[in-house]
Amino acid sequence: MIFWLKDMGEFRDVVVSSRIRLARNLDNYRFPIRIGTDEARQVYDDVIRSLDKNKYLSFKMKDIPVIERNMLVEKHIISPALLHTPNISGFAMNEQEDETIMINEEDHIRIQVLDSGLALKKAWKKADEIDNQLGNSLRYAYDEKIGYLTSCPTNLGTGLRVSVMLHLPAMEMTKEINKVLTTITQFGLAVRGVYGEGTKALGSLYQISNQSTLGDSEETIIKKIDHLTRQIAEKERITRKNIFEKSAVSFEDKIFRAYGILKNTRIISTDEAVRLISFLKLGIASGLITDNNINDMDKLFIEIQPASLQYISRKEMNDMERDIKRAEIIRNKIN
Amino acid sequence: MIFWLKDMGEFRDVVVSSRIRLARNLDNYRFPIRIGTDEARQVYDDVIRSLDKNKYLSFKMKDIPVIERNMLVEKHIISPALLHTPNISGFAMNEQEDETIMINEEDHIRIQVLDSGLALKKAWKKADEIDNQLGNSLRYAYDEKIGYLTSCPTNLGTGLRVSVMLHLPAMEMTKEINKVLTTITQFGLAVRGVYGEGTKALGSLYQISNQSTLGDSEETIIKKIDHLTRQIAEKERITRKNIFEKSAVSFEDKIFRAYGILKNTRIISTDEAVRLISFLKLGIASGLITDNNINDMDKLFIEIQPASLQYISRKEMNDMERDIKRAEIIRNKIN
Repeated sequence: MIFWLKDMGEFRDVVVSSRIRLARNLDNYRFPIRIGTDEARQVYDDVIRSLDKNKYLSFKMKDIPVIERNMLVEKHIISPALLHTPNISGFAMNEQEDETIMINEEDHIRIQVLDSGLALKKAWKKADEIDNQLGNSLRYAYDEKIGYLTSCPTNLGTGLRVSVMLHLPAMEMTKEINKVLTTITQFGLAVRGVYGEGTKALGSLYQISNQSTLGDSEETIIKKIDHLTRQIAEKERITRKNIFEKSAVSFEDKIFRAYGILKNTRIISTDEAVRLISFLKLGIASGLITDNNINDMDKLFIEIQPASLQYISRKEMNDMERDIKRAEIIRNKIN
Repeated sequence: MIFWLKDMGEFRDVVVSSRIRLARNLDNYRFPIRIGTDEARQVYDDVIRSLDKNKYLSFKMKDIPVIERNMLVEKHIISPALLHTPNISGFAMNEQEDETIMINEEDHIRIQVLDSGLALKKAWKKADEIDNQLGNSLRYAYDEKIGYLTSCPTNLGTGLRVSVMLHLPAMEMTKEINKVLTTITQFGLAVRGVYGEGTKALGSLYQISNQSTLGDSEETIIKKIDHLTRQIAEKERITRKNIFEKSAVSFEDKIFRAYGILKNTRIISTDEAVRLISFLKLGIASGLITDNNINDMDKLFIEIQPASLQYISRKEMNDMERDIKRAEIIRNKIN
């Protein structure tokens, strides 16, 4: 179901995933906010033509049913913003679903590479290759002084957004998370929820990314986030160990109760499920729960989101039906 | 551990237990509230002498360690009031622990017979036999007009207290319980918590007993409570069925979550445990949970009380140690 999430990856016990995103625009078309329908179709055709047809499958958004569109967002394959302009937007992705080229989102082109664990350099290398491939046949909107031109000034220059998704339940428990979040902001980085800007930190998951795309080189931006992520992940590991040593029983209790509820529930909301899966992940990372693995839990986290649920069930469902289906999927997934 | 609770019994899905208690005093001694130590010892000796030595074991309260005293209360073998005068009180009980003769509680003699399910007539027959046996060799304080004389006027006449312990979770859920409790009171009956007067209704358990001991015959009092219990039990059964049919999923969810938590918890308070065991009992009665039986859950209810816990562990424990031990006992008991 979710191909890009894997067991492997550095700091996989803390870092769920790494993401590289590049914003690009074409020189010979108006930017998406001003673009006409015909022009937009030409952008789509130009971009798809520049990609290796053997490697990438391409889709026009208007051909995709609404539930599947939302499911793609939940799986992080496309951005929520790509759904804002379904008449002109589209995307290409590879079979592993870890490389996406979004077309006519806020910019003409958004290149995205995903990986599990801390793998920013690897993801950057892939994104850079796609960028070069496209750049060979397309003329980018580029300014010698500023760099790549984008619709929003926050993406100007490198057009690079580097982000990591961190699971920080222990620091959330001890409230140390607040200090960490302040530090992150002071470093000029942004903290967001699982599904991007304006979404809340579900299940102790925090998305950290660079705010500035201008001034520093791609390598510098990546190095900065990679370095800070390592520090935060180490701190989370230490905090987990401390909590476990200081209050082993109540820690075990929280985790095993979460396990017991998830294994037995018949109806459960996304919020509660996500909170309990977060505890279970912590239990797996701490070695208390041995029959399940973190990667399956990260996949489960996505599979129980509203659209993914409905896609699995092949039908639209109301809130209660979803809560029942969610419980069923969880019970079946947990060993 | 708890011998008097059994699988069998009428309405065992709703009625945990039936109890008959007779208050008697001896004519030739001052009543316990005014009694001297030597006199009290003579009462003890007189009563024990009148009992079949092959059937009853006798104990002076002062010889019993405090934790064991409290455990006997939790197991309903003796009354809490018997602990108020440990220097003069004592009791005799049979091997099955379903027949107790308490000595120098509020009255000289308190005969108690316990049984599981609705079994008032059977219990009454046993209590009546013990009463006859004692009456053959002891001279009771008795008035031709009033009947048996007792320390408190609320026991005058028959000296009979008839009570049933009912598990009424469904009517609690639908709030119908309030109407039922009002009706019970209007019938001149009293409703109490699990451990008697002034204790709260833990785990949806309600103790119903007669308030008046004067005026009606023993048979009339018993018939009245037996009749009302059947009505309440039938109503509880119907309510369970209705809830199950109307909202099967959320009903199942409550029960399976309770099961999941109890099966996995590492630290749990009496209150929470009792609440969850109540759900589990309901699940067993409804046929949703098949690996466990109601009788084991009723025993568990007693085994997790503070004194019983400490007795099992053979040591005094603080709150946290008890909550941990309680979780362990529950995990081991539930299949």
